[in-house]
Amino acid sequence: MSTARYFLDMNSLEKQKRRNAPKTKAKILAAAQQAFADLGYSQAGIRDIAAIAGVSSTLLLRYYGSKAGLFEAALIEAMRTDALFEKGRDKFGEHVTGLLLDPNLDIKPPAIISLSTGDADAREITTRVTDQHAVAPLAKWLGPPDSRARAMEIVILCTGFVIYTRQLPLMPAPKGVDNKLAKWLAQTLQAIVDQS
Amino acid sequence: MSTARYFLDMNSLEKQKRRNAPKTKAKILAAAQQAFADLGYSQAGIRDIAAIAGVSSTLLLRYYGSKAGLFEAALIEAMRTDALFEKGRDKFGEHVTGLLLDPNLDIKPPAIISLSTGDADAREITTRVTDQHAVAPLAKWLGPPDSRARAMEIVILCTGFVIYTRQLPLMPAPKGVDNKLAKWLAQTLQAIVDQS
Repeated sequence: MSTARYFLDMNSLEKQKRRNAPKTKAKILAAAQQAFADLGYSQAGIRDIAAIAGVSSTLLLRYYGSKAGLFEAALIEAMRTDALFEKGRDKFGEHVTGLLLDPNLDIKPPAIISLSTGDADAREITTRVTDQHAVAPLAKWLGPPDSRARAMEIVILCTGFVIYTRQLPLMPAPKGVDNKLAKWLAQTLQAIVDQS
Repeated sequence: MSTARYFLDMNSLEKQKRRNAPKTKAKILAAAQQAFADLGYSQAGIRDIAAIAGVSSTLLLRYYGSKAGLFEAALIEAMRTDALFEKGRDKFGEHVTGLLLDPNLDIKPPAIISLSTGDADAREITTRVTDQHAVAPLAKWLGPPDSRARAMEIVILCTGFVIYTRQLPLMPAPKGVDNKLAKWLAQTLQAIVDQS
C-alpha cells in the first residue's frame, strides 16, 4: 500500500468513526440509563455499562470523563420536558395526565432519580439536573407570578403520581388508576397553570 | 449451688430476657431503619444490622425470620400516620404541612421507600405496607366519597413534597421552602379533606 493510500484510508476511517460518534454516544447513554435505573448509581459500574453498550471503558471515559459525568449526561437525556408543552396552556392538566398514564411511558427517569438518593454525589447531580432541566423550563413556560414555586408544584405532583402508579404501584398505571385520581391530577395541574 | 437455686436463677434470667425483648426489638428496628435508609434493601446485610444493634444474627432472625421480615417490620414501625390526625379535619392541611416542614422530621421513611424501589422483593413489601399502613388509615379517616383515591392524593402530595425539600432538596426544608409552595400544599391537602 502506498503511503498516500494509507493516509487516505486512515482519513476515511477517522471520518467514519466521527460519523458514528453520535450513535455510539446514544448507545452508551441508553446502557447507562438502564444500569442506573436497575442497579442505582453506587452499584452500576463503568465497565458493565461499557460492555452493555459494546464499547471500551476507555472510549466511554473519553466521552463522559467519569461515572458522575456519565450519570449527569444520562439523566439530562432522560429528563425531557418538551412533550409537556405540546398541547398549549388550556389543555396542560389533561395532556400531562395522559402522558403519565400512557402505557408506553418510560419509567427509567423516576427509577434513576429514586435510586440516586442512596449516594451523596448522585443526589447532588440529580438535584441540580432536576432544577435546571425540569423546574427551570417549566417555570419559564409558566411565567409570573411565583413561577418557580408553581413549577415545583407540578414536579411534586408528577413525581408522586408516577411513584404510586408505576414504581410502587398501589394503583398500577394505566388500568388500575382510579378515574377520580386521574381527574384530580388533571384539575390540580390545570389550576397551577391557570394562576397566570 | 443447689439444683433448686439453679433453676430459680435460670428462671429469673429468662424473665429478664423476656422483659428486655421489647427494648432489644426496638434497637434492632432502629438499626434496620438506619441501614435500609442509608444503603437500601439490597446492600444492607443482616449481619451488619445485628452488629449495629449489638445482638447476634441468630437472635435477629429468631425475632424477624428473614431480611424481608425485618424490612417489613422496620417500615411499618417507621410509617406512623397517627400524627396526621391530631388536629382535626379543619386544620388538616396546615397541620400536615407543619409536620413536613418540622426541622426534626425524620426522613428515614422516605429514604427507605426510595431505595426499596431497586429491589423486587422490597418493592412488593413497600407497596403493600404503604397501602395498609398509610393509604388505608387515611381512607378510613377521610370517609366517603372516593376515600381511597383521596387518600392516594394525600400520599402523592406528601411524598413529592418530602422528596424535593429533603431528599433532593431543590427547596431545602424548612427555611429554603418558598412560602407560596407551603401555602399551596396546605390548601391542596385541605381541599381533599373538605370534599367529604
